[in-house]
Formats: sequence, structure tokens, C-alpha cells
Amino acid sequence: MSLRLFDLCGTDPARTFSPFCWRTKLALAHKGLDFESVPWRFTEKDRLAAHGAKTVPVLLHDDRAIVDSWTIAAYLEATFPDRPSLFPGGIAGTRFIKAWSEAMMAHIAPAMLTAIHDHLGPADRDYFRQSREQRFGRTLEEMSADPQPHVQRLREYLGPLRTVLRSQDFVAGDAPAHADHLCMGPLLWARAVSPLALLASDDPVHAWRERMLDAYGGFARRAPGYD
Amino acid sequence: MSLRLFDLCGTDPARTFSPFCWRTKLALAHKGLDFESVPWRFTEKDRLAAHGAKTVPVLLHDDRAIVDSWTIAAYLEATFPDRPSLFPGGIAGTRFIKAWSEAMMAHIAPAMLTAIHDHLGPADRDYFRQSREQRFGRTLEEMSADPQPHVQRLREYLGPLRTVLRSQDFVAGDAPAHADHLCMGPLLWARAVSPLALLASDDPVHAWRERMLDAYGGFARRAPGYD
Repeated sequence: MSLRLFDLCGTDPARTFSPFCWRTKLALAHKGLDFESVPWRFTEKDRLAAHGAKTVPVLLHDDRAIVDSWTIAAYLEATFPDRPSLFPGGIAGTRFIKAWSEAMMAHIAPAMLTAIHDHLGPADRDYFRQSREQRFGRTLEEMSADPQPHVQRLREYLGPLRTVLRSQDFVAGDAPAHADHLCMGPLLWARAVSPLALLASDDPVHAWRERMLDAYGGFARRAPGYD
Repeated sequence: MSLRLFDLCGTDPARTFSPFCWRTKLALAHKGLDFESVPWRFTEKDRLAAHGAKTVPVLLHDDRAIVDSWTIAAYLEATFPDRPSLFPGGIAGTRFIKAWSEAMMAHIAPAMLTAIHDHLGPADRDYFRQSREQRFGRTLEEMSADPQPHVQRLREYLGPLRTVLRSQDFVAGDAPAHADHLCMGPLLWARAVSPLALLASDDPVHAWRERMLDAYGGFARRAPGYD
């Protein structure tokens, strides 16, 4: 059996930053599955199209391509049922946290745009600047100029996560599961590209982030990033 | 066996509006447990103190008092394990939605303050005005004067709930569970006291609210309220 994952990076193939790819990598680590990381860059659309995909993550399980991080998580759960469950409370019960964690990305993105840009090679820089400036209607530099208001709004947004982590060590309970991967994805995205401190050091979310970096034998902490 | 629930009301004992009591009533209905509603008003603190409580809901199971809606839900789940589960995904996995639904109340409260006040008797009105105006630093009328900005922020806040309800009929999945009760509590609070339309009629959250009003044989819909 082989598992290969198309994983977004810039000039450094080890510095992978897509929050959606991070979900998948944590899910693979949770299942104890070895996989080969296939570095992929924004402008290499043809390499995904060959597998019927437009975005990463794309997981190749032998010859089969599975597209979309949520579909991949459900696939891993169904295909490897004897390994630790990603959804101890069921898939339906985790959908809320999926939706909530995606809105969380909107609070992080503006503060990360120039940092992501700086980690890209020339062709990807052009693509990234053009596509993001068109999407948001402002220059990358304008959007990232003052990150503190975004950081404040993010910290407010994290209120429910903070409350949960005062009662239990992980979002899923006593041990991490895919609910934790979903919330951690956006923070690993930021960690890969920027030294900006999104969390106060006395925040229970910060302590949970440390636990998640240490989880699965330090899987996420080994990736290049700013701590 | 007897189950008696101290339940917050104003002049009309049937028009019960506490979002925390609603959580408990939906949990009791979910378990198929008959209970007696004991009307309780803001200024009747002594009646709760007799049971070691300061706030409602208080559930009396025969001679035993169980205080706090979350504690009550866990108690019902443990005490009546053969009845439909409140936590099909486990208690830990539902904590996030508990925390998220409590922050939701902050978006509803300002628009409801004068409406709640108008449903109270004289002694409760004085208590309610004094305690809330002290808490928020403004008059009830100032806070409720223009509800539309609060309604808009609430609708934005409901984004993750809306996303989930595009994929499944209930927060918990194919059938309601306590995750649904937690999210419905604040909406039943509003429904009891105010005709203000918190949800657009084409909102998936609106359609889910209808399903929840119909759930358990129309349990919530039978309560006096504005539809």
C-alpha cells in the first residue's frame, strides 16, 4: 500500500502551510499511517488536474485519488476502521467544528498574506498577489499592514474553543481527534509562515496548541515553523 | 418517581423564557420523561436557596435537587441510559456547541431586554431593570432601541450552524440531540417574549428551528410564543 499527499509549499518543500493539508496530515498521523509528501505549488494546477482535482489536499491511495480534506478524513475513517478513530463522536457531530474552524481562517488570513507571499518563488508570488488582491480588492501590503486588530478579533472568535479547553485537554475530549485537527489546521498555517503571536502565552488555547504540536510523537512540531 | 422543574416565567406561568430552562425541557422531552413545571420568578430567590441553588433550572428528582442545565443533562443521561441518548457523540464532543451557543445569547439579549421586562410583574420588573442596567451600564430602552444591528450580528454569528444545517437536518446529525437543544434554547427564549424576526425565512437555521418546534410531538411549539 502507498499513500502520497499533494501538499502546498513555497520555495522550501518542507515548509508546508495549507490549513486544509494540515488537517489531512494530522488525520494520517492520528491513524498512524505513513505517507509520502508530494510538494506542490500554487501554479502547478496541471499536476492536480491529472487527478481530477483543483485544490489540495489530494491523497493518492495506491492508484486512487481522494480529493478534499473532509472527504479524505471520512475515507481514512472508513478504510482504516481498526486504527484510532478520527470521529469518536461520529462524523455528523464534528461538522459544526469544521464549519466554525473555517470561519476562523478568515480572521487569520489578512495578517498572513505578505508572510505567505514572502515564502513563495517568483511565479507563485505573481499568481498569489494577483488572485488575492483581486479577491479582497486591496494590496497584500494594505491588508497585512496592521495585524493587531485581526489578532484581537481572532482571540475573541476563539472564545468557545477557550471555554472548552478549560474543561478538557482536547476539543474531542481526553485525547485528540479530528475536531482538534480542524481547529489546529489554521494555527499550523500561521506557524509555517509567520512569527506573529496569534495567542497570548497564558491562553488555554496556547497550551492546547503546544499539546497538539507534541501529539503523535511531535509530528507537527517537527515541521519548519515559528514557535 | 417524580420530576419537578423550577422554570422561569413572568406574569404568565406558561410563558417560560429562560434559555437554560429550555435546554432542560428539551432534554426531558428527548428522554420522553414527564415532568411538572414549577413556575418561578426572578425575585423568588428563597425558593431556590432551599435547594442550594441560585439560578434556574433546578430539577427535583424525587427529593434530590440537581442544579445547572449542563449538570442536569449529564444527570439525565446517566440516570436514564435506556432512553434516547442526549449525547450520541459523547459529552466531551458536545461541549464546544455548549460554549458556542452561550456566546450566541449575547447577540440576542440586547434586542430582548424590554420585551422580557414587559412580560414581568411589578416586583420582577424592578429587579430586572436594576440588575440589567447595572450589568450593562445603559437603560433597557437604550439597549433595545434599535435591534437590527444585533439581529445582523446574530445572523453572521450563526454562520457555522447554517453551514452544518445545509448538510444535515440537525446539529447532532439525522436526529436531534442535546447539541440541538443547546442551540435552540436561545431561540426559544426570544420566541417566548418577542415577535422580532431573528432569522430570515429562507435561512436553513429557520427551517431547522421549525423542525425543532415540531420535535417530540410539537413539545416546544405548544408553549406560548411568537412564531
